[in-house]
Amino acid sequence: MEFEVVKQDTQSQARAGLLTTVHGQVPTPAFMPVGTRGVVRTLSQKELEEAGVRLLLCNTYHLWLRPGPGVIQKAGGLHRFIGWDRPILTDSGGYQIFSLAQLNKVSEQGAAFQSHIDGSYHVFTPERVVEIEHALGADIIMPLDQCIAYPCTYEEAREASMLTIRWAERSLKRHRELGEEKSIGCHPALFGIVQGSVYPELRQNNAGQLLAMDFPGYAIGGLSVGEPKSLMYEMLEAVLPLLPADRPRYLMGIGYPEDLVECVALGVDMFDCVIPTRNGRNGMVFTSSGRLVLRNAQYAQDFSPIDPECQCYACQNYTRAYIRHLFQVEEMLGLRLASLHNVYFFMKLMEQMREAIRKGSFQRWRQEFKNKYNTAYPGGNDRESFQ
Amino acid sequence: MEFEVVKQDTQSQARAGLLTTVHGQVPTPAFMPVGTRGVVRTLSQKELEEAGVRLLLCNTYHLWLRPGPGVIQKAGGLHRFIGWDRPILTDSGGYQIFSLAQLNKVSEQGAAFQSHIDGSYHVFTPERVVEIEHALGADIIMPLDQCIAYPCTYEEAREASMLTIRWAERSLKRHRELGEEKSIGCHPALFGIVQGSVYPELRQNNAGQLLAMDFPGYAIGGLSVGEPKSLMYEMLEAVLPLLPADRPRYLMGIGYPEDLVECVALGVDMFDCVIPTRNGRNGMVFTSSGRLVLRNAQYAQDFSPIDPECQCYACQNYTRAYIRHLFQVEEMLGLRLASLHNVYFFMKLMEQMREAIRKGSFQRWRQEFKNKYNTAYPGGNDRESFQ
Repeated sequence: MEFEVVKQDTQSQARAGLLTTVHGQVPTPAFMPVGTRGVVRTLSQKELEEAGVRLLLCNTYHLWLRPGPGVIQKAGGLHRFIGWDRPILTDSGGYQIFSLAQLNKVSEQGAAFQSHIDGSYHVFTPERVVEIEHALGADIIMPLDQCIAYPCTYEEAREASMLTIRWAERSLKRHRELGEEKSIGCHPALFGIVQGSVYPELRQNNAGQLLAMDFPGYAIGGLSVGEPKSLMYEMLEAVLPLLPADRPRYLMGIGYPEDLVECVALGVDMFDCVIPTRNGRNGMVFTSSGRLVLRNAQYAQDFSPIDPECQCYACQNYTRAYIRHLFQVEEMLGLRLASLHNVYFFMKLMEQMREAIRKGSFQRWRQEFKNKYNTAYPGGNDRESFQ
Repeated sequence: MEFEVVKQDTQSQARAGLLTTVHGQVPTPAFMPVGTRGVVRTLSQKELEEAGVRLLLCNTYHLWLRPGPGVIQKAGGLHRFIGWDRPILTDSGGYQIFSLAQLNKVSEQGAAFQSHIDGSYHVFTPERVVEIEHALGADIIMPLDQCIAYPCTYEEAREASMLTIRWAERSLKRHRELGEEKSIGCHPALFGIVQGSVYPELRQNNAGQLLAMDFPGYAIGGLSVGEPKSLMYEMLEAVLPLLPADRPRYLMGIGYPEDLVECVALGVDMFDCVIPTRNGRNGMVFTSSGRLVLRNAQYAQDFSPIDPECQCYACQNYTRAYIRHLFQVEEMLGLRLASLHNVYFFMKLMEQMREAIRKGSFQRWRQEFKNKYNTAYPGGNDRESFQ
């Protein structure tokens, strides 16, 4: 993987970049829809491509349990198995072990857990996770980390973040060994993940230790897990300036459109979140002037599209009234159209930001977005967890 | 509506024809996917068009309850409401009142029933149903009929079929009045429905009385409701020869591919059935060499497409193993791909039959189909009822 900053904004930390992988290029700032089980819920791969998705997130934990890495390897890797030939990033499963599975024990060695599906016992070690991710054939892979809940004490956060660092070292070691075993050049990129809960000192310390290991990209994890939004921004402001300008910065599990804009301004390059699809399935859609809940009675006879400014298939062909009807009668096409529109909206939002940064007009664009977009909606933890 | 027989097969009763409506032409024999609530379950209108669907069935009963005819009229009619500009046929709701709603009373006047959704009280009279269907703006409309269960006595069947005839007369009268009220030429075509359960004499008597009323098309209803398949064919052989050659013949609620082929050979021009979508949602797919159940473990590592001979999006882009995985992890894309493939398969089957009839090779095609296609699957009642 290569990363190049194409344009640095002069009035903010925002930058436009280009990630290059063997499966193609990804202009940044980029948003990844979440394809936990090898599919972005309700959508087809063709629809993702048409929406402009260039990088897809899949989840090691879920794919490990079903269909299992053996099936995916026999299929010729994850790209072939799911019919997606653009880049894929795999999350390590750390977050899911701690939020979803029945956790049996975290030790220095790794995390022992029971499957949330059938109760079967599994052990994820940092080495094992990297091995699985190599076997899946992802382009960017994340190491196992210990995610802790909010709130937690300084001491809890310190211990977890130090364990995460030791795991990162082991992940990197195994990753390099695997790279040396390979004859072909499809070596994935392993990112480091900064943890440290809401303690700036821990976050900064954590970042410093990861930097010493020289990862090709850095993620910030363990945010948007229930903490006040002001604390999330405090952490970003503590960590982002420490990260090297020539490496991509990935903020995990964020966010709402207004958060994406602010975080891009702080210098984040990559995002993932289930919001466009999960909220879509609940009937919430994002428009250029804010959010609306299609299930509401006020849309029963509203024959305008979700967003008159949108060029997606849903907006070009269907009305709010029809999509609301689909939700009322529990027809899946409603979930599809709302999800499709939201993914399209998020991809267009990122495209607009990339273009504004390249043109040197990001600050003006950001102000116009704020003026138009109504942000009066509560945030929360929007990473794929309770499914 | 106009109907023209383009080619009559010389070795069977099969014929290729052309239905012309204000919303476009429909080559026959034609299969209609069922879009009960204004949507074919899991599929988009674009996907239906791409699969070659030319005529869509929607249901008066369901649309009456939700969203209600007022919303649809305000949208500018059913075509506009659902974003479908090809022809639409509306079923009357008779079948649903008797199978789905809590039926309170059938009288000479009509059928009083309680909604299966909220228990609200409604009365459908033959006149009211025709009025609703005119308001929806369908191209072909079906009159209210009394559907009775199988088995039933001769006397029960006789009374129901006679009431259906009297209702057909009233439907036709109201339909003609509405046509005279209209200034523009989008008058729908009202078909007659032959009932009479499994009693050939009743069926033939019923057909004779409908013929005297001179409908532009004739449907055969009340079959595939649990009777042995041999009885269904006995009824078809009793009724079809009586129907005029220059009018389309519509067999309601049928069927499996093997039934479609046999019924086309008997001279049926139109079909509708939920099988492609309902069975698809259950993981059953149709292929040129028979049916298969994708959920089965045998497909877990089968990296071939559903049907190697099929050109649909599912077969061109995904494997059985991946679609099985989607079913295993309960991802909607699995239901979508199976439904999409099945609708495509049914449309291609009809296209093949139309082409074979036009070329004069239908009997040979039919034999080849039988040799290749495994028909060892139990039939049953496959009209959209228990949802």
